[in-house]
Amino acid sequence: MIGGRRPLSGRKIGDRRVRVERPHAAYFRYSGPGQLRARESASAPTTPAGRAWARVKAILLGRPLASEEEIGERLTKKKALAIFSSDAISSSAYATEEIILAFSLSGVAGLALGYSIQISLAIAVLLAVVAFSYRQVCIAYPTGGGSYSVSKATIGRLASLVAASALLVDYSLTVAVSTSSAVEQIASAVPGLDPVRVYIGVAAILLITLANLRGLREAGNIFAVPTYLFLGSALLMIGLGVYRVVVLGETGAPPPEVVAATEDLAGLALIVVLLRAFASGAVALTGTEAIATGVPAFQRPEARNAATTLMVMAGILGVLFVGITFLATSFGIYPIDEPKQTVIAQVSSRVYGADSIGFYLFQGFTALLLFLAANTSFNAFPRLAAVLAQDGFFPRQFAFRGDRLAFSMGIVVLGVVAATLVVAVEGQTHALIPLYAVGVFIDFTISQAGMVRHWLRERSPGYRYRLTVNAVGGIATAIVAVVVTSVKFVAGAYLVLIVIPLLVAMMLFIRREYDAQTEELRVRDDLVVARPHREQRVVIPVNGINRAVVQAVNFARILAADVRAVYITEVVEEGEELRERWERQLPGVPLVIVESPYRAILGPFIAYLDVLDRAWPPDKEAPVTIVVLPEYVARHWWDRLLYNQTAKRLKSALVGREHTVIADVPYRRVH
Amino acid sequence: MIGGRRPLSGRKIGDRRVRVERPHAAYFRYSGPGQLRARESASAPTTPAGRAWARVKAILLGRPLASEEEIGERLTKKKALAIFSSDAISSSAYATEEIILAFSLSGVAGLALGYSIQISLAIAVLLAVVAFSYRQVCIAYPTGGGSYSVSKATIGRLASLVAASALLVDYSLTVAVSTSSAVEQIASAVPGLDPVRVYIGVAAILLITLANLRGLREAGNIFAVPTYLFLGSALLMIGLGVYRVVVLGETGAPPPEVVAATEDLAGLALIVVLLRAFASGAVALTGTEAIATGVPAFQRPEARNAATTLMVMAGILGVLFVGITFLATSFGIYPIDEPKQTVIAQVSSRVYGADSIGFYLFQGFTALLLFLAANTSFNAFPRLAAVLAQDGFFPRQFAFRGDRLAFSMGIVVLGVVAATLVVAVEGQTHALIPLYAVGVFIDFTISQAGMVRHWLRERSPGYRYRLTVNAVGGIATAIVAVVVTSVKFVAGAYLVLIVIPLLVAMMLFIRREYDAQTEELRVRDDLVVARPHREQRVVIPVNGINRAVVQAVNFARILAADVRAVYITEVVEEGEELRERWERQLPGVPLVIVESPYRAILGPFIAYLDVLDRAWPPDKEAPVTIVVLPEYVARHWWDRLLYNQTAKRLKSALVGREHTVIADVPYRRVH
Repeated sequence: MIGGRRPLSGRKIGDRRVRVERPHAAYFRYSGPGQLRARESASAPTTPAGRAWARVKAILLGRPLASEEEIGERLTKKKALAIFSSDAISSSAYATEEIILAFSLSGVAGLALGYSIQISLAIAVLLAVVAFSYRQVCIAYPTGGGSYSVSKATIGRLASLVAASALLVDYSLTVAVSTSSAVEQIASAVPGLDPVRVYIGVAAILLITLANLRGLREAGNIFAVPTYLFLGSALLMIGLGVYRVVVLGETGAPPPEVVAATEDLAGLALIVVLLRAFASGAVALTGTEAIATGVPAFQRPEARNAATTLMVMAGILGVLFVGITFLATSFGIYPIDEPKQTVIAQVSSRVYGADSIGFYLFQGFTALLLFLAANTSFNAFPRLAAVLAQDGFFPRQFAFRGDRLAFSMGIVVLGVVAATLVVAVEGQTHALIPLYAVGVFIDFTISQAGMVRHWLRERSPGYRYRLTVNAVGGIATAIVAVVVTSVKFVAGAYLVLIVIPLLVAMMLFIRREYDAQTEELRVRDDLVVARPHREQRVVIPVNGINRAVVQAVNFARILAADVRAVYITEVVEEGEELRERWERQLPGVPLVIVESPYRAILGPFIAYLDVLDRAWPPDKEAPVTIVVLPEYVARHWWDRLLYNQTAKRLKSALVGREHTVIADVPYRRVH
Repeated sequence: MIGGRRPLSGRKIGDRRVRVERPHAAYFRYSGPGQLRARESASAPTTPAGRAWARVKAILLGRPLASEEEIGERLTKKKALAIFSSDAISSSAYATEEIILAFSLSGVAGLALGYSIQISLAIAVLLAVVAFSYRQVCIAYPTGGGSYSVSKATIGRLASLVAASALLVDYSLTVAVSTSSAVEQIASAVPGLDPVRVYIGVAAILLITLANLRGLREAGNIFAVPTYLFLGSALLMIGLGVYRVVVLGETGAPPPEVVAATEDLAGLALIVVLLRAFASGAVALTGTEAIATGVPAFQRPEARNAATTLMVMAGILGVLFVGITFLATSFGIYPIDEPKQTVIAQVSSRVYGADSIGFYLFQGFTALLLFLAANTSFNAFPRLAAVLAQDGFFPRQFAFRGDRLAFSMGIVVLGVVAATLVVAVEGQTHALIPLYAVGVFIDFTISQAGMVRHWLRERSPGYRYRLTVNAVGGIATAIVAVVVTSVKFVAGAYLVLIVIPLLVAMMLFIRREYDAQTEELRVRDDLVVARPHREQRVVIPVNGINRAVVQAVNFARILAADVRAVYITEVVEEGEELRERWERQLPGVPLVIVESPYRAILGPFIAYLDVLDRAWPPDKEAPVTIVVLPEYVARHWWDRLLYNQTAKRLKSALVGREHTVIADVPYRRVH
């Protein structure tokens, strides 16, 4: 019953700007003709329970923020470094350990002493390439979205969705890996906590989730200081350590079992082992793209500030990663399992002294930095999900901002996924690493490929240089992506290769559903909807005389003169009884009693509507049948079991019927 | 907005018997003024999928039956004996075994040889008392419902609900116990099936459930012959066995471990052991009440026929139970566990010969009888649930009869509960026995107490004799109830004492909910609802211009001249854009744009309605505000995730608001 198939009718009652009634001062501000602006009080809770809940929320999350307050939430470079770079920098806490572990697990632990430092240098070079590539992304795409935006603009939908899926996977893993590693750092300092690592990890994720639901700026204040404390103490540790190794000539011997297992490899076998170690250490690069995704959170000029922050971050990460690897190999350090002693904990214990205050402080700072890294993803994941939701690839709820302007749905989903991952691997960082690097390098590659096409299309001055940077970056990261996936395939990388296509398929499906709905509901832009003047009649299915039915009948009488009630019953005597009462209490509304010997309700009711339609003279346009459904509104979940959902079933059976409009008139007593 | 606060208005448009439109022959028969009778075709499915499903249902369950066809479904005495008495009679298949097991588990297996027969005789006396008591229930309460009806009429609500709960528990256990025992009988004959006992049990319950969904009469036909085959072969076995024991002097020795364990007890210890054995054997009485509950299923005269059937059944059960116990003790038979060899299987193996055709036939008949016993509950449970539903203590769905006139919901629920029980105890009959007898005897006691009050109240001729019968029965069953509960408490009886109060509480809660709804919806019987003539205006919350909104606007224009649309947006520019299009395409319907900086929708919308209300001159009666909600109807379950359920949330926030009627106008495109 879509109206407007006739030209605009002559009558124009009410064709005027609406008069905005006063007094509206308490709830609204009058902001133009027919236009109001809601105050905070318009959404204030009116029930005692609602007010109590609002107070709890205000304590946990802070007061609601209006949309315009967002601009004040922008980040300075120093704060942005603390928030966005912690992911990348914090990987120095476990990347060295992963290299050494890769040698151990290949059965050639001894080789770690000789080759780790070269591998860390190779990774540092790769880091420089990637950082230069992403620097250009920040400048070319200041609206954020990182590789998703880049590839959407330059390559196409499928590539951009693959990039987005890879990013979503990586953000989830960042939270899980960083939290697990943070807890391992804590357990390295306080071995008594080793048995409850999983609980600590889940509790930490819960806290970070809550902090992020409060909004971005406060998260920055909470975490900015500890980041710089870590950076200071880590650089101090490297300085002291290098001094002792290089100047004082201090070194250490690896544990006896490593010395015993040492053997030499050559040729292909050596190359495979080195590739494995390289793939393991490549996790150091994860998080490099975070800044490119979060450009809009920077202070103006966003792009320039983000680019600078990115380069500073890459420099710091390179120094930390190479420095720690140098110290670990020089001191002959290997990870210890029971109880967990991480490599970085052993390095700091060696430099600052076992059980020294310096050691405990450094472990604390490292753990805090890793929690901050988890926090990075709580900025990036919800933003990406919101962009995807705006593009119709994610449920719309992900684009809504909560009271504190944070994308609450994305934050909550990320928290749940990450906590599940931590529980699934029992808090072991190493178990998640094989899944981690795959997505990152797929993403890097798509991003750089997109940039190459960007420069080819734009051909702005100096584009040849920029093109070269991104091409080199893309080729390098593509090679690494293939290497990482192959050597880590069985250990878990295959999971990512399953999850990414599933995510892409889901996003395409969601988009198709939204497109279908839009198409279904579309109204031609040039259509003028005239006042309808077809005849109408009303049919009300009733189950007796009660307030819901009386309300429906009153409503129906406004709609049309031809109103009839239909009572469907198995026992015809009940119908007769009702008729007596009906004609006395609801005069003027004819009651049709339909005896249903097969006890069905839907079928006979629809058949009755068909009979009404057919009875109309064929030369006359059939009137619109309005079915008014009295509905008793349930208050509790169990009401669904107690009350027959006949109104609901009738509604879904009738919706879409020709010449039929359904009006569901819910009833519930005022309390 | 309950109308009718004014006296009947003068206008009476439409105050006439409705003209029933023709042609209605295909779907309806005209059965009186304003009255139709639906044919089967009125509920015929119209879609291909619907037709396919109807065909599947017809194959599984048979063609739909009209309500009048019920009368043909009544049972002759012989068929009723097969259906209703199988529960009681079949307990002879495991009651003897439970007595012997009780001695074994008390560590005095040897005593079983001497005392089992006396205990079985004591139980037979109790059976006679109970049977005479229930015979009077059949006659006094021919409408069925058994102890629930009796205690409701004579004692009160709480007692009747306790009785009903006990019955529901027992019906569920009957299915689980009988099925498990049937499968044990099969496994005793075919030991290879022992490992898959649980699967066979669950499959059997599924089949019985389906058979019952087809309707009562056919179930009778399927099972009547095997019952009489069992009775014949069991009586033959007892005859042959007794002849061999008494005349030929044949006896058997118990297994050596029993002989070794034999010791003598005296005093209190002996009494406790005997009470345990008695409590175990008392399961023989379960099912005695089934006939009293099912009186209306008998042919006329229902009460007399039911009473006769009950006495025949008790006589048969007594002979079988005592006879089998006599043979088992005479032959020195004890149950064997791995693989399962039931006592009755060992008796028949002894009498008919191991691996003889007679043995296999008898085991088959026994198993079939036990399945029939399970079937008894599929008659009784749904009937009781339907009675409870009619009384408002159970969800109404339990009172609806399906296409085949069976109370489908009760049948399905019973099938699920029983299958769950069988899986939970891994198909072991013995594990369920302690739960089983408790409810039965609670129920017997309440029933007899009710009969005592019945006779005291009625004082019909000869009531003194009847009163005495029921009083004796009540006291005897009360004592047994206490004994059974005490000696079986730890073994599982406590569970029943938890479940029964829970069920009672649930039923009281359901009744309270239904009462509250009725009260909430009640319309005074003398109220005449006049045609309303208060002013009305319509407010439509819109999310843009689409077909759902256009349909809602067209609908609203029928309702009132004062129609306005409200668009709530975070971004005021979007509102401006919409206004341009709106005024062009929907002229005559003013659009109010509400900017919501806190991103809320519900709050500002309700606040806007408040503003409208307050703007009305205080001396004039406020008009009715009709909120027309355009609703996009979801097709799939995932649509709930993809579409914001704003219409639903608005509806539940607005329903019950003063001077407000909500009309939810669902939209879905015709396909």
